[in-house]
Amino acid sequence: MPYINVDENLPGIRALLAFRPETATPIGVLAENLLRTSDSLSRADRELIGMYVSSLNDCFYCNHSHGEIAVCYLNGNRDLVEAVRQNYKEAAISEKLKSLLQIAAKVQISGKAVLPEDITNARQQGASDRDIHDTVLIAAAFCMMNRYVDGLNAVTPLDMSTYPLRANQIVEKGYGNHIFLQPNNA
Amino acid sequence: MPYINVDENLPGIRALLAFRPETATPIGVLAENLLRTSDSLSRADRELIGMYVSSLNDCFYCNHSHGEIAVCYLNGNRDLVEAVRQNYKEAAISEKLKSLLQIAAKVQISGKAVLPEDITNARQQGASDRDIHDTVLIAAAFCMMNRYVDGLNAVTPLDMSTYPLRANQIVEKGYGNHIFLQPNNA
Repeated sequence: MPYINVDENLPGIRALLAFRPETATPIGVLAENLLRTSDSLSRADRELIGMYVSSLNDCFYCNHSHGEIAVCYLNGNRDLVEAVRQNYKEAAISEKLKSLLQIAAKVQISGKAVLPEDITNARQQGASDRDIHDTVLIAAAFCMMNRYVDGLNAVTPLDMSTYPLRANQIVEKGYGNHIFLQPNNA
Repeated sequence: MPYINVDENLPGIRALLAFRPETATPIGVLAENLLRTSDSLSRADRELIGMYVSSLNDCFYCNHSHGEIAVCYLNGNRDLVEAVRQNYKEAAISEKLKSLLQIAAKVQISGKAVLPEDITNARQQGASDRDIHDTVLIAAAFCMMNRYVDGLNAVTPLDMSTYPLRANQIVEKGYGNHIFLQPNNA
């Protein structure tokens, strides 16, 4: 049960966003502008970084919500998403994305854990300034979202069939507040 | 030196925001709506929570930037801000704010570290749902900001005289992007 009185029909972060629209709006815009652009990194890459950081933070809701969104962008390839979740170093993804996941894993621990050699490695795999910036900010933003969700003990659906339904809505319509604030089945 | 090519005349997070305006805008609005309201918690309380989480994350730039903003709201009482930074349990602040700083310190570790007894304690000291929500989100947001700043190795001014100057600008004009994006001395 959530620690504050929110609409329990809304799962995860959505009940928290509905509780406080003044902060929900910029959080939705940040997610939209950071995760739904495909400049440089693809949308799938961005969701995989968010999913991976959420798994490291042991945030079930964000881990599976964003994992399912990545599945959609990867045309249903759930095995690949699971491979990244379990051990990205052995997954069938680019060396560039592996080097960015290495940076994201450091950010999950602390900003100071990111070392010059992590950046050098990413550049050697072809990462641009923009890729590195976005990776650090995506990882940092999920460190916020994960703490927001679990710090208020938000409702976490355990019925896994609800996650793909919701993921499809995000893929189609984005992270706008109309999505966050509408009750639905996912 | 920052890990990516940003304007080194802009200190801390400001160079990162200038690098990527699409994400700077919602980050500025989130800071404004979360830190510059005095509904329930005062602006000073909100900045103290942000400063304290930044000190736990060892983020020098955010720790001292937001500490100085708290000093402004507290009419120059730097000793009180320092007391909170060093050991809030002994500082001359309300028992309610102490109970909220206890929650913020848990959020800094992990969302899951917040326990029902932390929430019960805060309610016993008079904290409302809104106070608890805002405390968790402020703490979570600083876990993002601190990682963004240090994960990209942003410029951290060591000249402490620049922090009060900048703090006064924030207190007067807020966290709008016109502030973030303009070079100045702070």
